[in-house]
Amino acid sequence: MAAITALVHGLGNIGANVIHSLENAPDMECLGVVRGPASLGTKTAELRGLPEFGSLEALVQAKGKPQVAIICGPSRLAPEEARRYLAAGLHTVDSFDIHSEIPRVVDDLGAEAVRAGRSAVVAAGWDPGSDSVLRALFEAMTPVGATFTNFGRGRSMGHSVAARAIAGVADAVSITIPLGGGRHARLVYILPQAGAGQEAIRAALGADAYFSHDPLEVRFVDSPEELAAAADNSHGVLLERLGASGRASNQRLSFDMRIDNPALTAQVMVAAARAAARLAPGCYTMIDIPPVALLPGDRMRHIARLV
Amino acid sequence: MAAITALVHGLGNIGANVIHSLENAPDMECLGVVRGPASLGTKTAELRGLPEFGSLEALVQAKGKPQVAIICGPSRLAPEEARRYLAAGLHTVDSFDIHSEIPRVVDDLGAEAVRAGRSAVVAAGWDPGSDSVLRALFEAMTPVGATFTNFGRGRSMGHSVAARAIAGVADAVSITIPLGGGRHARLVYILPQAGAGQEAIRAALGADAYFSHDPLEVRFVDSPEELAAAADNSHGVLLERLGASGRASNQRLSFDMRIDNPALTAQVMVAAARAAARLAPGCYTMIDIPPVALLPGDRMRHIARLV
Repeated sequence: MAAITALVHGLGNIGANVIHSLENAPDMECLGVVRGPASLGTKTAELRGLPEFGSLEALVQAKGKPQVAIICGPSRLAPEEARRYLAAGLHTVDSFDIHSEIPRVVDDLGAEAVRAGRSAVVAAGWDPGSDSVLRALFEAMTPVGATFTNFGRGRSMGHSVAARAIAGVADAVSITIPLGGGRHARLVYILPQAGAGQEAIRAALGADAYFSHDPLEVRFVDSPEELAAAADNSHGVLLERLGASGRASNQRLSFDMRIDNPALTAQVMVAAARAAARLAPGCYTMIDIPPVALLPGDRMRHIARLV
Repeated sequence: MAAITALVHGLGNIGANVIHSLENAPDMECLGVVRGPASLGTKTAELRGLPEFGSLEALVQAKGKPQVAIICGPSRLAPEEARRYLAAGLHTVDSFDIHSEIPRVVDDLGAEAVRAGRSAVVAAGWDPGSDSVLRALFEAMTPVGATFTNFGRGRSMGHSVAARAIAGVADAVSITIPLGGGRHARLVYILPQAGAGQEAIRAALGADAYFSHDPLEVRFVDSPEELAAAADNSHGVLLERLGASGRASNQRLSFDMRIDNPALTAQVMVAAARAAARLAPGCYTMIDIPPVALLPGDRMRHIARLV
C-alpha cells in the first residue's frame, strides 16, 4: 500500500514533534517542511534530515504534491493556511484551539473542502481533540449528568502568550493548577523588563480577561534561565462525568492522563492526517471521525484486536 | 423533526433498561416490545405501558414499521435475529459480546445490511462497546505502548452462565475481581443441587475453560436468597495505557468507570440505535461510528459544546 504523503507547515514545538510521529507511522511519509522564508536555515536539527521549503510551490516542484498538509503554525493563522492548502488540492489538519471560534471555522472550511474535493480536520489536538471525543462518548453513555474538565498541572500556551502581552513583561510562563470541579488557579512566572514595576504588572495581569476569573499567583524571576526552568512540557487532564444511564444514577466515568503536551498534540494531528486521507470531502472535528480511521492499516484487524 | 422509531426485542435485564433509556431520549420513540410467544403476558411491569407482540409482523400490523430493532435477547442468538430484522428492512443494534466472533459477524451482517440498504451496529455495549472506542483512541494517541483492561469488581454474565452449566450446580453467580495488569480472579457463588458434592463441582469448575486460567475461589450458598444477595448490577473497568507519542515516552492514559452494568449497556445500545438510523448502509462496531452520531440533535451544537 502506498504511503500517505504529508508536509509539515511550521517548525515550532509542535512541528518538530509531528516529524517524530510521522517517522514512527508505518503508513505515512513526510515529504518536507514548509516554513516562512525568514526562518529557512534555522533550527535545522529539528528537520532530522528532511528538506525545507519557503513555499508549497517550491516543495511540490522538488518532491511532488503531498496528500496532506499538517499545519503547525500559530493557532490564530491556521484557518487561513488550511483554506490555502485546501484550494491547492491538499487535505489539511490543524490543532486550532480557540474553542469559541471552532463552529465558524468548521462551516467555512467545510464549504472550501467540499469545493476542493478534499478533507480538513480542525481542532485535532488533545483539548480540543481527544478530550472532545471523550466528552462526546461520556454524554452518549450518560445523557443526563455533568462533565468537569480539570486541566493541569501544566503550562498553558494561551495564558503564557496573554501574560507576555502585558506592558512591562519581557517573558512569562503560566501554569494551570486544577482546583477541582473544572475550576483552575493560574501560577504565572514573570520576567519583567528592566525598570518595570511589579505592582503595575500584577494589577494589569489580574485585570486581563485570561486571568480575571481565576485565583492568580504571580512570581517574578530575575533571568531567562530561571523562567525556562519553569517551562517544561508536562501536562495533563482529569475529565470527570457523574450522571445517569436511563434510570440508573451514580454512573461514574473518569479519564486521567499525564503527558508530554506537544508530543501528544502532534501525535493526534498525525492520526487525524491519516483519517483526512481516508474520509469523504468535508470538514471534520475529532468527534466527527470514526475512531478506527485514526489507526494505520486494516479496519478488520483493529476490530479483531480492539472491539 | 420526526422521532426515530424503535422496537425492543426481548425483555430481560437489558431490554427493560433499553425501555428506560428510550423514554429519556428526546429524539426516539419506542413502538413496542417483541418477545417470544411463551413469555407474552409475563413481567408486564417492565413494559411500562408499552404494547408487546409475539412477532415483528404483529407489531408492524398494529403500530407500523419501526426504523430500528434493538436486540436484547441472548448474545449467542443476536446475529441471527439481526439478520432477520435487516432482511425485513429495519436497522439493527445488538450488544453481541463474544469477542472472538465479532469480525465474522461484522462481515456476515455487513453483506446483509448492504443488500437491505440498512445499518447494523454490532457489539454496542461497554465491553465490547465504549471500552473499544477508548482502546482505539488510546492507540491513536500513543501508537507504541500497552493497554490493560481491568474488569470489575462486578458480576460477569458470561462466567455466571458457564458456572450454571456445571453438573450439580442449581444456580451460580461469578464475580470478577481485578488483580492488576489486565489479570483477574473469579469469585463464584454456587447454589448446589440437592445431593451434589462440593468437591466435584469445585473440580469441574476449575477445569472449565472459563475459569482454568485465573485464580478461583468458590463459595457454596444454601438458598436462592443467599445467591441473589451476591448478584447486584454494580460493575466497572479500569482501562490503562502507558506508551509513547512520537519520541515522548511516559504518556499515561487511564479510564476508570463505576457503573450499573445493564443500564450502561442499554444506554450505549440506544445511542447506537440513533447512529444506525443516520449512517450509510453497512455493518458497524462502535469504533466505526463518528462519536457525534451517538448524540441526539444537531451536530454543530455538539461541536460548539463539546469540542
